[in-house]
Amino acid sequence: MKTKGVFDCFLLSMVFCFVFFQNSVHGRILSVSKPHPDNAAAFARWLVSQSSWGSLNTISSDMGGAPFGNVVSFSDGLPDKGHGIPYFYLTTLDPTASNALKDQRSSFTISEYPIGTCGKTDPENPTCAKITLTGKLQVLNGNSNETEFAQTALFTKHPEMKDWPKDHNFQFFKLEIEDIFMINWFGGPKPLTVDQYLHAKMNKLSVIL
Amino acid sequence: MKTKGVFDCFLLSMVFCFVFFQNSVHGRILSVSKPHPDNAAAFARWLVSQSSWGSLNTISSDMGGAPFGNVVSFSDGLPDKGHGIPYFYLTTLDPTASNALKDQRSSFTISEYPIGTCGKTDPENPTCAKITLTGKLQVLNGNSNETEFAQTALFTKHPEMKDWPKDHNFQFFKLEIEDIFMINWFGGPKPLTVDQYLHAKMNKLSVIL
Repeated sequence: MKTKGVFDCFLLSMVFCFVFFQNSVHGRILSVSKPHPDNAAAFARWLVSQSSWGSLNTISSDMGGAPFGNVVSFSDGLPDKGHGIPYFYLTTLDPTASNALKDQRSSFTISEYPIGTCGKTDPENPTCAKITLTGKLQVLNGNSNETEFAQTALFTKHPEMKDWPKDHNFQFFKLEIEDIFMINWFGGPKPLTVDQYLHAKMNKLSVIL
Repeated sequence: MKTKGVFDCFLLSMVFCFVFFQNSVHGRILSVSKPHPDNAAAFARWLVSQSSWGSLNTISSDMGGAPFGNVVSFSDGLPDKGHGIPYFYLTTLDPTASNALKDQRSSFTISEYPIGTCGKTDPENPTCAKITLTGKLQVLNGNSNETEFAQTALFTKHPEMKDWPKDHNFQFFKLEIEDIFMINWFGGPKPLTVDQYLHAKMNKLSVIL
């Protein structure tokens, strides 16, 4: 009986730890189940929606036109209600925003690995998904509805942004997607158009994890 | 007494979970302590050495010269014995390697966030470090000492690589670093030359975590 009590306590602790660590390390608990890899559009939208950061890549005229990747946070909407378009909160004190104002060509790269759903699979293994959205990085007009959407999307998923220094002149940017490269299983990149991606039918909400 | 026993069990479980999750989510347990942010060279080497993947960015001639980021695994040497130069195991079935064979200009972007040492800090917050190494992505000669070093470095940190399909013609690549952009605290990018980076004096081994 005593052994059973200790075992129960251990099990309870495991569950507590599992939920706690998922929450603390990855920023939130998964609430939408991962689509089947064959459902490329839904999978891509899940990957973007569940991620909170990635590498935003621009052309650096200061470095001979080299591709310059930079770690940034992003949001495509409210949690589990993303629209698929990544929005960013950037300052021209950072090279990425100033590069984009000179040359809009850019891409945004996300890995499934930090979400925590790849297990022990290597981040370069094709079954640990990765997506690169290529297009134009555009600054948003200060007073548009889209700017308001971007602000709500970003400040909800990244609450500390609203307190970032006003004198750094942060502005909202969006990636106007023109091409999608996604690998989420064996067999090479999944054929996926921008239209299919933007109009994907998402899975319903599922239980926590 | 009984309460104390349950509490002890709970504490033990917490410790077990903490070590287990650090190990399973991030691939390994940190064994070198994080240098002070002011020690830019040592910090940069720590960040590269403790990371296992990042975004490798090349120029895509197929997409009008757009910067194309791609998630890849890498290694700069044996665990905690890295030399600072990132090596990759890439196939030209993937755009990144074929882009690099046409145009070597590239960068490699790493975030501290997935290491797990940023806590609840946002990935774009300057105190959650990020580094971009810019330079030339070069394929290694098949039989050189450097190829042997790259193979050992990669296959040790990424054991599944040695079983990846032979008919995919994976080759070893290195990033010949020409510029380093690192933010690891407030105040903008840290001034850091490639020479300072490559000859950084690293911290001694510390206890687990």
